[in-house]
Amino acid sequence: MALVPLLTDDEADARARAVFDDIRTTRANNYINNIWRALANDPDQLQATWSQVKRTMAPGALDALTKELIYIAVSAANNCSYCLHTHTAAARSKGMSEAMFNELMQVVYLASLTNRVAIGLQVELDQRYLQPPSPPAA
Amino acid sequence: MALVPLLTDDEADARARAVFDDIRTTRANNYINNIWRALANDPDQLQATWSQVKRTMAPGALDALTKELIYIAVSAANNCSYCLHTHTAAARSKGMSEAMFNELMQVVYLASLTNRVAIGLQVELDQRYLQPPSPPAA
Amino acid sequence: MALVPLLTDDEADARARAVFDDIRTTRANNYINNIWRALANDPDQLQATWSQVKRTMAPGALDALTKELIYIAVSAANNCSYCLHTHTAAARSKGMSEAMFNELMQVVYLASLTNRVAIGLQVELDQRYLQPPSPPAA
Amino acid sequence: MALVPLLTDDEADARARAVFDDIRTTRANNYINNIWRALANDPDQLQATWSQVKRTMAPGALDALTKELIYIAVSAANNCSYCLHTHTAAARSKGMSEAMFNELMQVVYLASLTNRVAIGLQVELDQRYLQPPSPPAA
Amino acid sequence: MALVPLLTDDEADARARAVFDDIRTTRANNYINNIWRALANDPDQLQATWSQVKRTMAPGALDALTKELIYIAVSAANNCSYCLHTHTAAARSKGMSEAMFNELMQVVYLASLTNRVAIGLQVELDQRYLQPPSPPAA
Amino acid sequence: MALVPLLTDDEADARARAVFDDIRTTRANNYINNIWRALANDPDQLQATWSQVKRTMAPGALDALTKELIYIAVSAANNCSYCLHTHTAAARSKGMSEAMFNELMQVVYLASLTNRVAIGLQVELDQRYLQPPSPPAA
Repeated sequence: MALVPLLTDDEADARARAVFDDIRTTRANNYINNIWRALANDPDQLQATWSQVKRTMAPGALDALTKELIYIAVSAANNCSYCLHTHTAAARSKGMSEAMFNELMQVVYLASLTNRVAIGLQVELDQRYLQPPSPPAA
Repeated sequence: MALVPLLTDDEADARARAVFDDIRTTRANNYINNIWRALANDPDQLQATWSQVKRTMAPGALDALTKELIYIAVSAANNCSYCLHTHTAAARSKGMSEAMFNELMQVVYLASLTNRVAIGLQVELDQRYLQPPSPPAA
Repeated sequence: MALVPLLTDDEADARARAVFDDIRTTRANNYINNIWRALANDPDQLQATWSQVKRTMAPGALDALTKELIYIAVSAANNCSYCLHTHTAAARSKGMSEAMFNELMQVVYLASLTNRVAIGLQVELDQRYLQPPSPPAA
Repeated sequence: MALVPLLTDDEADARARAVFDDIRTTRANNYINNIWRALANDPDQLQATWSQVKRTMAPGALDALTKELIYIAVSAANNCSYCLHTHTAAARSKGMSEAMFNELMQVVYLASLTNRVAIGLQVELDQRYLQPPSPPAA
Repeated sequence: MALVPLLTDDEADARARAVFDDIRTTRANNYINNIWRALANDPDQLQATWSQVKRTMAPGALDALTKELIYIAVSAANNCSYCLHTHTAAARSKGMSEAMFNELMQVVYLASLTNRVAIGLQVELDQRYLQPPSPPAA
Repeated sequence: MALVPLLTDDEADARARAVFDDIRTTRANNYINNIWRALANDPDQLQATWSQVKRTMAPGALDALTKELIYIAVSAANNCSYCLHTHTAAARSKGMSEAMFNELMQVVYLASLTNRVAIGLQVELDQRYLQPPSPPAA
């Protein structure tokens, strides 16, 4: 049960409806996920969040599926049930095979373990990783 | 300052030294990171952890660089300073460009935000994501 | 389903019932939340926790509503579903408007993102923030 | 040591420098914090992040100081050392007294404890908090 | 609803079934928990995880019940509902009394609070804890 | 560098000094850890925290060393560097051997991994763990 109502198209205000329309067009899909209907209670935040999703998840130096895998990994680390369900579905629809999902999760589990080794033992960083990165060439 | 000594090759016992040797061979690199020298105080755990790293990070349905990106994403979510430094270096040595790193981090930031939207508003999962996945075909 | 029974007034022991009574008096409300009925299995901890809640949430240099907002923010960061529901209700009953809730959540989302920027990029603290704070004047 | 170089004004590109300029104007302060110099390696993300900070931290239904307190609370929950230092300084410069800081932290500590009670005991939500919130009046 | 099917004995492949058999034998109990049926979709990971559980949870310098208590503590800190339920049941079956459970949780709550004090105030480590630990005697 | 000054005995007020004295007496040790000197800026919180530490860490159904192990486990999960250093030292002074420390950490690593399996795959709880616990006998 969300802390705010999930607004229908009729309940959402004009700005929120415009975002719904853009989501539908961008995704070529008429369905609007609950998270957007919840965010519609704050049209400013809805707009800002959607515009960041649109910009960030578009393919670039990384392809769209790799971005979904990274998104799932963060959602698993952050314990976001909603996000794990919706983005696993999204990744599958973008071509994630079950073998890819298994390997994604294997890395998530491994990093969960080794992160805890480094933190639990308070391992200090090796000198060789302490060199300042160089600025981009002019 | 680690909670346990970082064992030199001479201080490590025979089983730990055998793991050090396998790390050197597998990575074609003589350097042993501090995390392994810390784990060498518990040779059983050193062996189990290294064998899991070796198995998990090898290319399969996902290539080795994609696995490093996922690893970095989890390490950022888990706030593991040691892991962020060492795996960013590893990813760069495996071909991660600065554009790729930027996009990786963009997805990490976005998921951090939208995970918090879904959690903060306690958005309930859409019915459509609640279908039981089917078992593999016989 | 809690890991311990939610004790009714009859099942709770005398010390726990005394805390229930104080909660009822302090809040001018007969209802006892499930968290207190769960804690009643350990009357010492029930008493200690309630006394800390009573002391901490009372208005002081910060008013009672601001304290509820801070409480919600931490509960969102910690992914505590129970706490988000009960304290959002409490904040609304203390006068939190939907506009205030929206802005509270905007800051929670923003901090979730920028915290991850600072951590993900391992940004070192600017020298100017490293000055030791001075002790209070005698 | 950040994972990317902290770009000086000269090293930053034109878009990043424009953001630096807007930060300086908005804050009436010539100093640019390290987090912005780190983000300048990705001018798109720098611009998006700064525009969200500017929009979100401006006073509205909540005043600017209350927003800083919420920001600090989230940063404490997320263990962001950089953010705790910079935003505690910001809050002090906006009028946070030591008494206010103490009470802020008291609530953060309390919520950390009671969040863990609700989670640790897996307390189920009281029926009364499960009513769907009503949509805004037309 | 899990993201992968919970495989029955018939749906699991031969390697996964062999792990199921070893779980049954080791625990002298015919029931297989859902987590293993979910992991059975990735027999490699199932095998690796079970072998680590078997090795780690066996009594050694710490007895089996103390290990369960530590496991519950981590699961509470990590907000793992599934793990809290299953391991509290396991600990009770290994002899954890309600008094022990109460004290376990008291420490979990206390550490949640004092961890947040140390982090929230950014308390620097006392010099006396910064001495390097000595390597084991030859 | 803490966000508040670490108060010397002379800088602390009378109430804080009384807590310092009780710490010294209880621990039969003249040294006061930095965390108490930081908390001394808020004598109420100092007093409340110390009284909870004193009550909780005393032996009861669990012995003092087991409580330290649980404390370390939570501190590792919460990424509290200060707490890991101070409580590992405390546990060693109370008799924790290196073999015990290794096994403690093995369980912490394992739970970090399996918590992430249960969360990452969103495994639903087995029916058998959903029985309501019974209230204590009258």
